[in-house]
Amino acid sequence: MSNTLSNSAILTALTEALGDDVVSPRERLLERRNADWSGMPGATPLALLRPRSTEQVAQALAICNRFRQPVVVQGGLTGLAGGACTAANEIALSLERMMAIEEVDAISSTITVQTGVTLEAVQQAASEAGLMFPLDLGARGSCTIGGNLATNAGGNRVIRYGMARDQVLGLEAVLADGSVIGGLHKMVKNNTGYDLRNLMIGSEGTLGIITRAVLRLRPRAGALATAWCGLPDYAAVTRLLGEAQRHLSTGVSAFEVMWPSFVDYMLGNVHGLRAPLDTPHPFYVLMESAGGDEASHQQAFEDFLAAMLEAGVIANASIAQSQSDAGAFWRIRDATAEFPILMPDLIAFDVSFAIADIGRAAQQCDEALRATWPGSTVLTYGHLGDGNLHLIVQVAGADDSTVNAVEALVYGIVREYGGSVSAEHGIGSKKRDVLGHTRAPAELAAMRAIKAALDPHGILNPGKVLPSIS
Amino acid sequence: MSNTLSNSAILTALTEALGDDVVSPRERLLERRNADWSGMPGATPLALLRPRSTEQVAQALAICNRFRQPVVVQGGLTGLAGGACTAANEIALSLERMMAIEEVDAISSTITVQTGVTLEAVQQAASEAGLMFPLDLGARGSCTIGGNLATNAGGNRVIRYGMARDQVLGLEAVLADGSVIGGLHKMVKNNTGYDLRNLMIGSEGTLGIITRAVLRLRPRAGALATAWCGLPDYAAVTRLLGEAQRHLSTGVSAFEVMWPSFVDYMLGNVHGLRAPLDTPHPFYVLMESAGGDEASHQQAFEDFLAAMLEAGVIANASIAQSQSDAGAFWRIRDATAEFPILMPDLIAFDVSFAIADIGRAAQQCDEALRATWPGSTVLTYGHLGDGNLHLIVQVAGADDSTVNAVEALVYGIVREYGGSVSAEHGIGSKKRDVLGHTRAPAELAAMRAIKAALDPHGILNPGKVLPSIS
Repeated sequence: MSNTLSNSAILTALTEALGDDVVSPRERLLERRNADWSGMPGATPLALLRPRSTEQVAQALAICNRFRQPVVVQGGLTGLAGGACTAANEIALSLERMMAIEEVDAISSTITVQTGVTLEAVQQAASEAGLMFPLDLGARGSCTIGGNLATNAGGNRVIRYGMARDQVLGLEAVLADGSVIGGLHKMVKNNTGYDLRNLMIGSEGTLGIITRAVLRLRPRAGALATAWCGLPDYAAVTRLLGEAQRHLSTGVSAFEVMWPSFVDYMLGNVHGLRAPLDTPHPFYVLMESAGGDEASHQQAFEDFLAAMLEAGVIANASIAQSQSDAGAFWRIRDATAEFPILMPDLIAFDVSFAIADIGRAAQQCDEALRATWPGSTVLTYGHLGDGNLHLIVQVAGADDSTVNAVEALVYGIVREYGGSVSAEHGIGSKKRDVLGHTRAPAELAAMRAIKAALDPHGILNPGKVLPSIS
Repeated sequence: MSNTLSNSAILTALTEALGDDVVSPRERLLERRNADWSGMPGATPLALLRPRSTEQVAQALAICNRFRQPVVVQGGLTGLAGGACTAANEIALSLERMMAIEEVDAISSTITVQTGVTLEAVQQAASEAGLMFPLDLGARGSCTIGGNLATNAGGNRVIRYGMARDQVLGLEAVLADGSVIGGLHKMVKNNTGYDLRNLMIGSEGTLGIITRAVLRLRPRAGALATAWCGLPDYAAVTRLLGEAQRHLSTGVSAFEVMWPSFVDYMLGNVHGLRAPLDTPHPFYVLMESAGGDEASHQQAFEDFLAAMLEAGVIANASIAQSQSDAGAFWRIRDATAEFPILMPDLIAFDVSFAIADIGRAAQQCDEALRATWPGSTVLTYGHLGDGNLHLIVQVAGADDSTVNAVEALVYGIVREYGGSVSAEHGIGSKKRDVLGHTRAPAELAAMRAIKAALDPHGILNPGKVLPSIS
């Protein structure tokens, strides 16, 4: 059977089962459907499926599995690793019509949703019930819960609430053959066999399509105390984190460390930012603590910082006296949103290390990059409490081979320290060839065995996550 | 080759590779090695292996895999589901010589251990470093970290710190073929491919042998405030939990609910216990909150309880004014340790439900059990914040068929509410035939596919966890 004949047979089978309304062949596609925010290349898929229910997802996969037809699941297309990009012979399956919030259970503190719902809609529904959904990241208005779970998204509040996987009590997913694994449970404790839930989470659409989930809600965080600190060295940064976790009764809700390279670049290039401190320091930390009672929490926070100043752990600090002050601090950190305009040719890294290693690892990356490419820009910042380091590199006139060399240098240092080549963005197609820097050959073999067991014909998001066998 | 010949060939191969010191054939076994605390039957194994390193575990499994020789991994033998029981044709592999604490990293807040170490030794090492390892359960002095991870143990502090799996950053495991998957990472954020870590955790020795782990440590909890509350109805119990999580700035570190059946039985049968309240109530809650500063935390806790009394959420409360008061409250809850003496023939359940359902589900179990077996004893208590309900049933003169009927009744109600047949004790051999009450057929099929992919000859803990195919 030629490709065209077989394509037409697949589309006929899908349309018969699901209807014209669900199946849009390539020639009827109006929007660009082949790429995410990663900038990775993609081609218009053979067709777009927009099912309305788990049953329709199951029917679609059963048919595609029979025809050995590759399927790429798509959420909000905001991924940064190319996990949702399509090739011309693939079918895209979007969950955009499955965005129901099925239940908010305030007593059990859970929300049950279809996974095409946006992160922001879940945050809002939680808030209306007097609770909070703590997962938060910049793309909140566009990204979907399905994408958050498929990539195990991180974001701003991991230090206190964990990653996307830590927000999930139960989930339902459709496997390659169309069978539905359904564990829409609301229990924190549930020790009944293998953890398929966590296996699906973070598998980036290669093991199944997550269709519904029961998510945990939390009490609202209460009053926020925020400070911008200047510190003398990296040892002081880790000591501040440890002391804050020990002495602030509600702990730390954000602990963003920024090297002067990052802060100076932002202050110099982004309009409307002001330096929180008058003098320069070797390290800056934006620290936030969420507590119950406004006045006593702020007082305890200020007392703690005074003690840290006294002890020489911090050299200086600016303590927010209002939401507006805190907002001004966060605008410096969040100016990363301007990178696409400021540095369209940047090479971005999302890596992680043991907290104890970050200082040395970051310095080693910085020195090696500047030595190899004099005049390059290297900006360093990260979520310290989670071990997550972001590194932004710009080399004037860089071509593909320069980009490869920069990546080889940084991932080599990651490997040396036993770090992770992807802290929170996933592997997708972008990082599959460096996955072996973090995962041992036996682990890659185990992943391949699991992939073959659950998706024997390899129809789910082929060519993503797992490196090609060389 | 006859069994005996083949057994002798296996033992010869193991002894040649590992030495006499590691391999003890059945005839040289001095201790009972065939059973855990579950009371499930077991037979003396063919041999006991006591390797000293990951490499020796890997060698042992590679040989056993070649000979298709079943292997049962053993930790502290304190499991309650029969997961470590052996049959006469099986080899037991104990991690008792792999108990090294390899590193405490106070900056990264991690501890790296071999998994034969006891839970208590890890708690102590954390404490010596000024930190805390929050996993805690009654068997702490005997149970091992390997067993805790293999069964995803729960315990007393899950409401605040999560289950065993939530304490793990990295782990190393040996697969059936002797290959070692090693991810001894210290990062909270690490999105690099499939979550083999969580797949190994809770698999009860059927997918691999966990040999080393990097565990997360936490800041010490600070001052404890404790109260024993009497409440009018189940709605008040869930409201108290919600209000406490919202209004106590550090939240709730324990929230143990007890039905009068449980409290009255304990007060009547265990020497030295005293009722904390003068009058009876339909529900009792032992609530604990861990905070920073002693005086202000206690004051906030007492103010909160006064407001709850005012609002009618609690009918009465006794607030601990000393550690000794708190200890007296906990002794009532912990009198469960007396069950083996008080009720040697008890039928115990460790199940979970959505928090919103527990009240009705527990009542339904209680009524149905008493109606079917008049005069039976039914005691009900649990960790409410985690959805975990414990149910103790005693029927005078019960034989095997009565036990089966009691289990069928209770697990039927669990199924009806979409609950879990095992909240924290695992499946082992005891609950494999009711796993299907909680996990759908497609989930069981996926588990079997994963088992076959990672352990194609089925040598690891055969007959455990997965139900036999009927």
